Amino acid sequence: MALALSLGRRGMGNAWPNPAVGCVLVRGGNIVGRGWTQPGGRPHAEVVALAQAGDAAAGATAYVTLEPCAHFGKTPPCADALIKARVARVVIATTDTDPRVAGQGIARLRAAGIEVQTGLMEAEALADLSGFFMRLADGRPRVTLKLASSFDGRIATASGESKWITGPAARHHVHGLRMRNDAVMVGGGTARADDPLLTVRDMGVSRQPTRVIVSRKLDLPRAGRLWDSIPEVPLILCHGPNLPEDVTAPWLTQGATLIECALDGRQVDVRSVLQGLGAAGLTRVFCEGGGNLAASLLLSDVVDELVGYTAGMALGAEGQPAIGAMGLGALAEAPRFRLVETRAIGPDVLHRWLRA
Amino acid sequence: MALALSLGRRGMGNAWPNPAVGCVLVRGGNIVGRGWTQPGGRPHAEVVALAQAGDAAAGATAYVTLEPCAHFGKTPPCADALIKARVARVVIATTDTDPRVAGQGIARLRAAGIEVQTGLMEAEALADLSGFFMRLADGRPRVTLKLASSFDGRIATASGESKWITGPAARHHVHGLRMRNDAVMVGGGTARADDPLLTVRDMGVSRQPTRVIVSRKLDLPRAGRLWDSIPEVPLILCHGPNLPEDVTAPWLTQGATLIECALDGRQVDVRSVLQGLGAAGLTRVFCEGGGNLAASLLLSDVVDELVGYTAGMALGAEGQPAIGAMGLGALAEAPRFRLVETRAIGPDVLHRWLRA
Repeated sequence: MALALSLGRRGMGNAWPNPAVGCVLVRGGNIVGRGWTQPGGRPHAEVVALAQAGDAAAGATAYVTLEPCAHFGKTPPCADALIKARVARVVIATTDTDPRVAGQGIARLRAAGIEVQTGLMEAEALADLSGFFMRLADGRPRVTLKLASSFDGRIATASGESKWITGPAARHHVHGLRMRNDAVMVGGGTARADDPLLTVRDMGVSRQPTRVIVSRKLDLPRAGRLWDSIPEVPLILCHGPNLPEDVTAPWLTQGATLIECALDGRQVDVRSVLQGLGAAGLTRVFCEGGGNLAASLLLSDVVDELVGYTAGMALGAEGQPAIGAMGLGALAEAPRFRLVETRAIGPDVLHRWLRA
Repeated sequence: MALALSLGRRGMGNAWPNPAVGCVLVRGGNIVGRGWTQPGGRPHAEVVALAQAGDAAAGATAYVTLEPCAHFGKTPPCADALIKARVARVVIATTDTDPRVAGQGIARLRAAGIEVQTGLMEAEALADLSGFFMRLADGRPRVTLKLASSFDGRIATASGESKWITGPAARHHVHGLRMRNDAVMVGGGTARADDPLLTVRDMGVSRQPTRVIVSRKLDLPRAGRLWDSIPEVPLILCHGPNLPEDVTAPWLTQGATLIECALDGRQVDVRSVLQGLGAAGLTRVFCEGGGNLAASLLLSDVVDELVGYTAGMALGAEGQPAIGAMGLGALAEAPRFRLVETRAIGPDVLHRWLRA
């Protein structure tokens, strides 16, 4: 199952709106098939592993990270494929909460006389698939917030200089996280200041994550790297209501997807943004700032994971803050997170936290 | 020698103005004496170990973290004591740069026919004794700056609420660092806001580190915990020039030590503060903020070690910054540090850095 989980992770960022599942077929102590959800979410992991195993699947044990599907979607049900291949036993990490599956995959397998066991390494599977489950339950993708800052929590000098605070190892790690998410999101201020490409580099990937920019008035430059890259790499713009057509039309013509979102005071409501992204099929979103978007996400309690990179450098109080104004009245109101990992990464410190 | 270094560390914070040295006497594979510099700097480590060994010192090997002294100070030279005890061999981690010793201890031992070896675990000894050497070379103590902050580098909410951002394990660790330093230093703003005791608690110590407060005008409350504790625990006030006697006299009467320091612009010059503390005999100073004093120390390039505690909590941009305004013109001007340790400490992250 550990191998199946590891294979499943290969699909992270590529399988949406489907879950990134892994499957291993074992017969007589030998691995006869390995599979994971392919880019775009099809074929499913089980189908890939069964195709690899061929006749050797008969009598094998299938380790699958998620309950095999039981419904006809764009592919026939995986439960039927396992039955047809005459596997002897199916071990499942966690059941599917998708109402179209929800135990029916298991029931179908058992009805065909296949032994089914569930719950092996379930915690790991639930963590890996949390974006998929969150979209099913709450309609929004899982959100990871990145903060790369100086020792004193600054992301740039007063004049906006930010290249580079953290070292190459941390920046490479960021590209790895971009790769394992369905989308990379920034606020309009960051888009204007940095004109970032937000693509995955130096990872050998062919498929780029979707880019998301949150900008109430769509007052973004219609030139530069980001604009030029729209035809090659998908861009979703989450904007406020009632924008005039002369503002929206050029972006649509260039190939961007526009999602109109509700306001929360004078800012775009990040809950509305995330519902829009969930409706678009995204299950895992990686937010890279800036400070105002980070503050909005934290205040709305929709940050599921925090990833910090801290550099051994002090920039002082005039430096730009990693997190914008939050208007907290008391310490007890501060959003809290639980540490899951800390280690050196090149010359910097990596720390990862989950919602407490 | 590892044991001798570890024994030497027991004197850290207590031995000043003398170095915190450790000594182990070994004869025939058995440890016959162990010693470290005693509170106040006397007796020296070698004398303690020799007293413990008694006649067993004859023919033994002495492992000493620093070259034995060769001069008559307040005690007779340790080199003579080792000769008199007829040790056969002396292994020294590092030689003493004190001009009164500087190789003369070794020469004296060799002249008496004792085999002397130097340089064993020298890097560790130089690190442990760096405060002592720094005071000899530059006239100032070694400075460790502590920053305990939220994920986004804040030490309090906008309204000043700061209890508690980090957890009990981090706060206990801070008391351990206070214990191993000669003095604990804060700025006047922190003294006014928190009225801190700055003592070591829950560590079973009997001797407290000296407290140091940097305050240009000595506009500190003459009541409260800090004021009341002056007769029991030493307090040094580093203030600006030409203060009227009605300001200074009450503090002197209460028992504080006053050091007049030069100004750097409108603030007390921290280099002048550190020279004053060095002249007073301090070799290791632990600074716990606030933000303005931290910024001054960083800008003056006198921070030798940074110790950070990062909590999984976001306070937002209105929170009080861990480091005050630094007036940096460019990223390249930012003071930089080299990571030496990072690990979880309770629910928080501990990270230690040395001057790059």
